[in-house]
Amino acid sequence: MNSFGVLFRVSLFGESHGSDTGVIIDGCPPGIALDPEDFIPDLTRRKSGARGTTSRKESDMPEFISGVYQGYTTGSPLAIITRNKDKISSDYSLFDNIPRPGHADFVAGMKYSGFSDLRGSGHFSGRITWGMVVAGVVAKKIYGRKNITAKLLSAGGSEDIEDAINRAIADNDSVGGIIECVVKDPPLGLGEPFFYSFESALSHIVFSIPAVKGIEFGSGFASASMRGSVHNDPFTDAAGKTASNHAGGINGGITNGNDIVFRVAVKPTSSIGKEQFTYNFQAEEMQKLKIKGRHDTCIALRMPVIIEAAAAITMVDLLLVNRGIYGIDKSGKTDS
Amino acid sequence: MNSFGVLFRVSLFGESHGSDTGVIIDGCPPGIALDPEDFIPDLTRRKSGARGTTSRKESDMPEFISGVYQGYTTGSPLAIITRNKDKISSDYSLFDNIPRPGHADFVAGMKYSGFSDLRGSGHFSGRITWGMVVAGVVAKKIYGRKNITAKLLSAGGSEDIEDAINRAIADNDSVGGIIECVVKDPPLGLGEPFFYSFESALSHIVFSIPAVKGIEFGSGFASASMRGSVHNDPFTDAAGKTASNHAGGINGGITNGNDIVFRVAVKPTSSIGKEQFTYNFQAEEMQKLKIKGRHDTCIALRMPVIIEAAAAITMVDLLLVNRGIYGIDKSGKTDS
Amino acid sequence: MNSFGVLFRVSLFGESHGSDTGVIIDGCPPGIALDPEDFIPDLTRRKSGARGTTSRKESDMPEFISGVYQGYTTGSPLAIITRNKDKISSDYSLFDNIPRPGHADFVAGMKYSGFSDLRGSGHFSGRITWGMVVAGVVAKKIYGRKNITAKLLSAGGSEDIEDAINRAIADNDSVGGIIECVVKDPPLGLGEPFFYSFESALSHIVFSIPAVKGIEFGSGFASASMRGSVHNDPFTDAAGKTASNHAGGINGGITNGNDIVFRVAVKPTSSIGKEQFTYNFQAEEMQKLKIKGRHDTCIALRMPVIIEAAAAITMVDLLLVNRGIYGIDKSGKTDS
Amino acid sequence: MNSFGVLFRVSLFGESHGSDTGVIIDGCPPGIALDPEDFIPDLTRRKSGARGTTSRKESDMPEFISGVYQGYTTGSPLAIITRNKDKISSDYSLFDNIPRPGHADFVAGMKYSGFSDLRGSGHFSGRITWGMVVAGVVAKKIYGRKNITAKLLSAGGSEDIEDAINRAIADNDSVGGIIECVVKDPPLGLGEPFFYSFESALSHIVFSIPAVKGIEFGSGFASASMRGSVHNDPFTDAAGKTASNHAGGINGGITNGNDIVFRVAVKPTSSIGKEQFTYNFQAEEMQKLKIKGRHDTCIALRMPVIIEAAAAITMVDLLLVNRGIYGIDKSGKTDS
Repeated sequence: MNSFGVLFRVSLFGESHGSDTGVIIDGCPPGIALDPEDFIPDLTRRKSGARGTTSRKESDMPEFISGVYQGYTTGSPLAIITRNKDKISSDYSLFDNIPRPGHADFVAGMKYSGFSDLRGSGHFSGRITWGMVVAGVVAKKIYGRKNITAKLLSAGGSEDIEDAINRAIADNDSVGGIIECVVKDPPLGLGEPFFYSFESALSHIVFSIPAVKGIEFGSGFASASMRGSVHNDPFTDAAGKTASNHAGGINGGITNGNDIVFRVAVKPTSSIGKEQFTYNFQAEEMQKLKIKGRHDTCIALRMPVIIEAAAAITMVDLLLVNRGIYGIDKSGKTDS
Repeated sequence: MNSFGVLFRVSLFGESHGSDTGVIIDGCPPGIALDPEDFIPDLTRRKSGARGTTSRKESDMPEFISGVYQGYTTGSPLAIITRNKDKISSDYSLFDNIPRPGHADFVAGMKYSGFSDLRGSGHFSGRITWGMVVAGVVAKKIYGRKNITAKLLSAGGSEDIEDAINRAIADNDSVGGIIECVVKDPPLGLGEPFFYSFESALSHIVFSIPAVKGIEFGSGFASASMRGSVHNDPFTDAAGKTASNHAGGINGGITNGNDIVFRVAVKPTSSIGKEQFTYNFQAEEMQKLKIKGRHDTCIALRMPVIIEAAAAITMVDLLLVNRGIYGIDKSGKTDS
Repeated sequence: MNSFGVLFRVSLFGESHGSDTGVIIDGCPPGIALDPEDFIPDLTRRKSGARGTTSRKESDMPEFISGVYQGYTTGSPLAIITRNKDKISSDYSLFDNIPRPGHADFVAGMKYSGFSDLRGSGHFSGRITWGMVVAGVVAKKIYGRKNITAKLLSAGGSEDIEDAINRAIADNDSVGGIIECVVKDPPLGLGEPFFYSFESALSHIVFSIPAVKGIEFGSGFASASMRGSVHNDPFTDAAGKTASNHAGGINGGITNGNDIVFRVAVKPTSSIGKEQFTYNFQAEEMQKLKIKGRHDTCIALRMPVIIEAAAAITMVDLLLVNRGIYGIDKSGKTDS
Repeated sequence: MNSFGVLFRVSLFGESHGSDTGVIIDGCPPGIALDPEDFIPDLTRRKSGARGTTSRKESDMPEFISGVYQGYTTGSPLAIITRNKDKISSDYSLFDNIPRPGHADFVAGMKYSGFSDLRGSGHFSGRITWGMVVAGVVAKKIYGRKNITAKLLSAGGSEDIEDAINRAIADNDSVGGIIECVVKDPPLGLGEPFFYSFESALSHIVFSIPAVKGIEFGSGFASASMRGSVHNDPFTDAAGKTASNHAGGINGGITNGNDIVFRVAVKPTSSIGKEQFTYNFQAEEMQKLKIKGRHDTCIALRMPVIIEAAAAITMVDLLLVNRGIYGIDKSGKTDS
């Protein structure tokens, strides 16, 4: 189940404290120039280190182990990994019997019958999003336009993000946030009605990212309070541009050529230093829990680049599907 | 692209004014008792007729054309159709050149190079959700529990739904709404980390439903304003029950056995009687448009049963996947 | 599991004695002209009636129930069905307890826990290939070349097919046959290395056809006896034409532009009038069985058109995948 | 396209002279004991070194980079790689313009627009089957029975395999071979009618293996010469055992519990030392070619273990699908 996409297929693997984390991209067109340096800007954005993020440091440099030759993709499956170096596993042994509230410890233990690697949250770790960012860099290159941009709008309900984080740090607590992503001037016609609508495909990959609890397109939840006469976006020219953009650039599950706009709700990190209650499954009673180790106060800080990656991967997959079935090229022209 | 599910695969077909609408279910276990009568309650809920819904009437009765023998599913692909009887196609000829704002007319015309059947919105019609409700009835039978329940929380921003609709009708306008769905006492362990998380699978199918513009799980967008110490749901007993349910029953993309709770934002119907502006692609200028014909004032009124169907289909697919890979049966016991 | 193809997806449904048999094609490009008359030549070739085939007659005419508007495909899922009219179900009730040797009766009864519809072999019937032939006609139109041709090379080991069949009829017996299919002047570059090689895709669909027990490409089994110096096909010009064609037009799982050649082994029909032995699962002892009803003496007679359909569907799916990932159009030119 | 399986999904990556070769298995149940030592017997069988195989040597030892913890699979994606150490790439630079007859050089160059890594045949190399053998070892452990056995029946048309190979070596030539695989006492009921028949699934993965040009089940091509009265296998007891096994253990695409028997035709290696003709695409004329480097005289010698792996992977995927949809456990009992 661990792959996304119809033609441009991304698979992720790795565990937080395993030897490597990586990504396989199947269906990557040949001839895309790839240099490890290309990945640094986006990987740096995802990386920990800023105030409000964990102090864990990874060199994070991508190693191409398949599908790149003399600096270009070959058309064979692209396999890219990175070594996990900075691991302190002793922090995590506790959680087998005393699962952290809000965390995957409990469900992972149950679902995998006790065999899952819970160190650093194992395969549930945000660490695994390294591969999604890497795939996003490749997708952005194929997409060939610079205008997929996500940013953190608010944290802990406040638009003064730094202040919200500082206050949470002071309390050994964490905060959530809202991220908005805009794809400017996208191609028209991406998405299939019903089971591969643009929103279906994008929400599918976005909810794969740990800590995401909501997504809305255009006016989203606010549109539920609107009248149709307000919500409908009037077409104003022959290219299909609209006067407003309540639809977030999508009609009937298909991009209409106006900016794609969506927002993502990120919950506060569950691992917090502040004392909380949980159940001790060995002692069979509730107990207090104070989690040591390195935590992100605001995981949402590191996530805009991951959301961009999810958007870029979706755009490319739908572009390739469109070209395949309909013969529509990137510029929107149909092959006859 | 028009199928959903890994093992329990649902495919929809039909066009609003085509001869038939239908659904194929592949991977439906044999031995499920199916009677056309079983489908009437849910199909009636989806049906038009109530104040605020279109006056179009379909007999809607399901016809089993494959996969049922002597009242039970056979294990072969299940094909169920219904005839479209009540069609007035002349209403729609206009929209080739003068696409309705907020509607799929424009993107469908462009994407399908003018070949799409725009009558009654063709394959983009809410009519196609007939097959999803039918698949939902089958899924509810397999799931075997009665507690998947969706209801309309508000319309047009008001909790007085009837009043909001009456006012919109008076204005020849439409309103959106918010639907909440709860799955009580679900099995623990549904969903795979990353690309088939419970939220990924469910949002995928929910965004296939026309007019959906947002989804949130548990506290959803509100969680972005919370602290971790508030959002984290403390485990309170050996079954994994939690004191609060901000997570909406899902940790790390996997159900934790607490009630699954999600909400869906439905935009106002784009087809309204009230005069609005759009672009005339033939005359190459903006013009006023007043849409005749039968419209839903509040399409969200008919959608709770469709949302329930989407939830039931997702639950069953993930249950079958769980049983397949992990040998976990419905009661949660692992086959050894 | 009952669908084939990555972009051009074909799903079959129906049971021999159910009300309808049909096919859904998802990913069918819009704008393909389709008339029920177009299907008659190929459906007639598949139809019973010739000496050596069963006397069962179906009108077989296709009914478009979704995806066609004003004579052209719309881009929405294409659903085509036909009514099953000429059914005599009483012939088959016997086989629940006394399964026919060589037939699916036994495995179907076991796998589907007694719920399968065994009348006329149910979903295992050759009747279901109606939908494959229909999909093949659509695929041939998209492929747009007339040169996919299959024919029966031999029956019962004899090249005098009529004689072999007449002798089998005289003995109330059946015979197998070998079919060869040639795709002349195919596009170069179809197929992906490893898991979607041309041979993988084609053999996958060909072994979906009842009674097929073997497939070989080019020299096939004979190549196992050859030396490399004999088997290797020397390239002779800049287009990649080869002096011989032991590879059957495929190198490394990818078409090389030379004629694609493959052969299929079809076993003799298992339903024969001649007395044979089987096990009576109710009486729990072996017994003699003499099957009444209408049977094909040589099912292979009706299969060349089905093999062509399988080839055409595969060609189109791989063409669309090629155009999607690599931007290669039908003429072999790459989109840049 | 580079993955196989519905629930037990195997993806391969790597290029002959890239840094690593590997395999990802998604849907691998947790709790399977895995030790690198477990892989040695099968990897040794695949390895070069015997007379008639290339002298290239790889340490071949598997490195678990994801999905194994404390000696057991975790349920997360299983990623296993090996380093490519013994590479001599200078041998291959020639073939860009002078493609080897019978080889993927030409089609790879065309399909991937000159970007493919042709060194050692790149992703088309037999080297990539390392990952299939590794996945096969995992599958055999899950399958839990020791009786999947493949062996080389003949080489170059001769049953005296050693003699055939010695003569080919003396001539700087290569020979093909025929491999037979038997799965003794398999579970009944594996395979779905039509598009995931047992033969469809198995042939799909078998034709992914380089050099395979034919496959037949049971009597296969010989069955085309048989009468039904001879070919039909009479059931003889309540377990479904049959007196003969012309069907190779499969009726209607579903295993019937009798031994599964199939044979695979392997063509002679295309890389030979003997002088042959090909086309020089730069000079635009035919020329003689004498290939240096290390070659397998009889690649079929190394392939029985790969065929076993393909069979084991298919068995496990179909077992998991069966358990998922039908609740049938390994012993054949149905979960109710």
